[in-house]
Amino acid sequence: MNNIKISYPNSEKIYLKGSLYPELRVAMRRVRLTPTVTIENGKRKLDTNAPVYIYDTSGPYSDPNIDIDLDKGLPRLRSPWIEKRKKGQTLMSLAKQGVITEEMEYVAIRENMNCAELGIATHITPEFVRNEIAAGRAVIPANINHPESEPMIIGTKFLVKINTNIGNSATTSGIDKEVEKAVWSCKWGGDTLMDLSTGPDISATRERILRNCPVPVGTVPMYQAFEKVNGKAEDLTWEIFRDTLIEQCEQGVDYFTIHCGIRLKNVHLSQGRLTGMVSRGGSIISKWCMVHQEESFLYSHFDEICDICAQYDVALSLGDGLRPGSTFDANDAAQFAELDTMGELVLRAWEKNVQAFIEGPGHVPMHKIKENMERQIEKCLAAPFYTLGPLVTDIAPAYDHITSAIGAAQIGWYGTAMLCYVTPKEHLALPNRDDVRTGVITYKIAAHAADLAKGHPGATIRDNAISKARYDFRWKDHFALALDPELALEYYKTSNDSDNEYCTMCGPNFCAARISHSLKECKDQ
Amino acid sequence: MNNIKISYPNSEKIYLKGSLYPELRVAMRRVRLTPTVTIENGKRKLDTNAPVYIYDTSGPYSDPNIDIDLDKGLPRLRSPWIEKRKKGQTLMSLAKQGVITEEMEYVAIRENMNCAELGIATHITPEFVRNEIAAGRAVIPANINHPESEPMIIGTKFLVKINTNIGNSATTSGIDKEVEKAVWSCKWGGDTLMDLSTGPDISATRERILRNCPVPVGTVPMYQAFEKVNGKAEDLTWEIFRDTLIEQCEQGVDYFTIHCGIRLKNVHLSQGRLTGMVSRGGSIISKWCMVHQEESFLYSHFDEICDICAQYDVALSLGDGLRPGSTFDANDAAQFAELDTMGELVLRAWEKNVQAFIEGPGHVPMHKIKENMERQIEKCLAAPFYTLGPLVTDIAPAYDHITSAIGAAQIGWYGTAMLCYVTPKEHLALPNRDDVRTGVITYKIAAHAADLAKGHPGATIRDNAISKARYDFRWKDHFALALDPELALEYYKTSNDSDNEYCTMCGPNFCAARISHSLKECKDQ
Repeated sequence: MNNIKISYPNSEKIYLKGSLYPELRVAMRRVRLTPTVTIENGKRKLDTNAPVYIYDTSGPYSDPNIDIDLDKGLPRLRSPWIEKRKKGQTLMSLAKQGVITEEMEYVAIRENMNCAELGIATHITPEFVRNEIAAGRAVIPANINHPESEPMIIGTKFLVKINTNIGNSATTSGIDKEVEKAVWSCKWGGDTLMDLSTGPDISATRERILRNCPVPVGTVPMYQAFEKVNGKAEDLTWEIFRDTLIEQCEQGVDYFTIHCGIRLKNVHLSQGRLTGMVSRGGSIISKWCMVHQEESFLYSHFDEICDICAQYDVALSLGDGLRPGSTFDANDAAQFAELDTMGELVLRAWEKNVQAFIEGPGHVPMHKIKENMERQIEKCLAAPFYTLGPLVTDIAPAYDHITSAIGAAQIGWYGTAMLCYVTPKEHLALPNRDDVRTGVITYKIAAHAADLAKGHPGATIRDNAISKARYDFRWKDHFALALDPELALEYYKTSNDSDNEYCTMCGPNFCAARISHSLKECKDQ
Repeated sequence: MNNIKISYPNSEKIYLKGSLYPELRVAMRRVRLTPTVTIENGKRKLDTNAPVYIYDTSGPYSDPNIDIDLDKGLPRLRSPWIEKRKKGQTLMSLAKQGVITEEMEYVAIRENMNCAELGIATHITPEFVRNEIAAGRAVIPANINHPESEPMIIGTKFLVKINTNIGNSATTSGIDKEVEKAVWSCKWGGDTLMDLSTGPDISATRERILRNCPVPVGTVPMYQAFEKVNGKAEDLTWEIFRDTLIEQCEQGVDYFTIHCGIRLKNVHLSQGRLTGMVSRGGSIISKWCMVHQEESFLYSHFDEICDICAQYDVALSLGDGLRPGSTFDANDAAQFAELDTMGELVLRAWEKNVQAFIEGPGHVPMHKIKENMERQIEKCLAAPFYTLGPLVTDIAPAYDHITSAIGAAQIGWYGTAMLCYVTPKEHLALPNRDDVRTGVITYKIAAHAADLAKGHPGATIRDNAISKARYDFRWKDHFALALDPELALEYYKTSNDSDNEYCTMCGPNFCAARISHSLKECKDQ
């Protein structure tokens, strides 16, 4: 358990250098492909297929030259960069001053997926990244105390990202299981990780995850504060919450979901709903407001929250406590009132040089999705949007990874920067390892579909390569390029023996691709 | 194996009568719900929840009063209606003459899902159905020799339907397995069934399925014709194909996919593609055209095909032999040239009073989906569109039910009348029973999401009922209303013991719904 490794078929881990910072080593996965074989005039002809570069979230786990020891933690990649800086200098403050940091060049290289090798020019330069960060349209979550994390960027002009939620609740799972899920998420392509643990060992679990996690880690600090008051919302205080924030900043959490958009005057708006409030953090702070008949301390102390975040360069994820819990409640007054407040708060965060993004729903039927995106852009000044799904129907528990991927792909296309995954267990139970894999892959599909629809540079390369491999019957290449090579191979093997020039879907005679290839010969005759 | 039965939790099978035809018995599933329990002023208060009516595709299998015997076949529901009619009178010819048939009233009642009981008026009257059939905008596939099938309608102004493909290939499965898959598809909600068998026993398999299938059955007759010439496309003749058509008409096939849109002059358009031709029927007839350098007999004998179909009231599904096999090839000249031909042919089918619909792609990235729908409506004069997916990315073999459900939900929303399901095994192997279930449920999600987005009358009833059940912790109701009650319950049980007022996702203290309910008490104080 102490030495987890990740590997992918026909792939090697490579590193690209920086230009501004030649010492940068930006990791990427290179997939080697076999040549296309054709017969021309009775002779066998080989055509080389260029390797495909894949955005790689697996960190040091997939580098055969790095020894992993979970007790020691991962190499501290970003430490030298951070040490040069003055305390309280956030990436946003530097960007505003015109400074391109190591993180900014790193993500520029990372986003380009080595398009340059194929001669594809892209808009994503280090200066472009700096400008997006300065304007608040993109975020690089990077707590100075989580130097193990590889820089990644969340913004509508970049690859659509996905987040994986893990974490135990009162009765389930242990620390090792959660770390295993974290690495598992990175293997399948999770871009960030939220530890939503609510049970005992909340702090030890988080520490173990942070030291071994190559992607940014987010939390909902309210969960830990709530444990401190034994689950009595009314006993919460600003001081308890503040101390929790500082503890988590010190540990290295990269972004905090805080439901500071809930105002005392808006809580009643959820009362006429079909499904009231379904956000844990949102319902806790609402209860506090109602019992005390007082403005939420998350709202009234917002500037202090920003000051704390700025000290560690923690990003704020403005949580949507009033998100709809059913398609019936979508786009209602409660939801949109909170969005207005978030627009006000994001501007205040930026004034304090704190990076921020906005959380969105939830449950929304397809015809109401676009309004969410357009309104968010308008009210929240183009800060990145980070949505949970949305689920486009409520009738399919056990398949909510699918109901939500339908909505996620659409809202990603419309401009959402990061999609929070949903697993098959949503609404039913906590996800296990298999559910994490299914959730991550499902959301990689949604995010990538959105990248294609948005025309992200280089996004089509992998699709075209796998399509060609399929048509060429290069099965090994087909699997190597798949989002989940292992499951694709497993399914193929259920009824195929070898590297045939067909599969059992149609059998040899009925293979359309085979017949289609033979048309060329008809023509050539 | 001879006595398969289907049951659903907390549900009973009911029958609604007709008005024009009082003898009609239109089946529906009624889900009984438990009352909502609240505490008001210390007293327990019960509020009744109205039963929910669900469109039911399970036929006699879910009627406890009907004995199933696969050797005898299902009751011949439509025989008395058909016997009254003159030979060659198709539903379309009758509709054009102003006749509302039993089938038309049946589907009108079926589509309404008993909305009347809730006081919801809808546009779907028997006369509305007749008018849509007469105009060619909707199809009721109903071969006079398949009287076991319950009438259903395919058209953009009705509930979005889904089709299940089953069938063995040269090496796999047996007749019983395929019948089992057919009933399984009906259980989970498949609206029509295509038997795509290509192996031996093609005819016996189809016979057994037809006699025991309560939903319309489609085939691709070219597959059987191709077997007759031992897989040599060039040996095909119009006569062999014609005899195959007549044999299948006699057996009771309700609709034929025929790739008659392929023209000799257009075949070359597929040559510049990344993935050539991926339609089996399309590649076979293209090969024939190329070898003989002659116009396809499916095109040149189209009027005779229509005459045969009219004799049995078989519907035509104009197959898209030039559909793209990759997102790269989407919306290209080959695809759209074929669509133009289909527009010409659908008009000729209507002149012969043959109902027809148009098949569509395939593989299309999200930003190119809408063009498919708009162009199909324009070129094919609003004939119903029947699409396979489309898959919005090619990088996820083993998850193509999901990549395609994303596209299917969108194109369904834009107006596609029927969605052909895709299973997790697509591109890899033939689906087994579990894959059929996953494929059907995934497509029920896409179709229902489209119904919601289109605002189909009554579509929100089930969503709202399940959302309320969830918020009320009425877990049994939650499962009974789910598309897949069995899997939802199974997942729930992985970590929940009983009918708790919470689940292990959050545990008791962190349950947002619980806290949200308690807000009401704060307010009441």
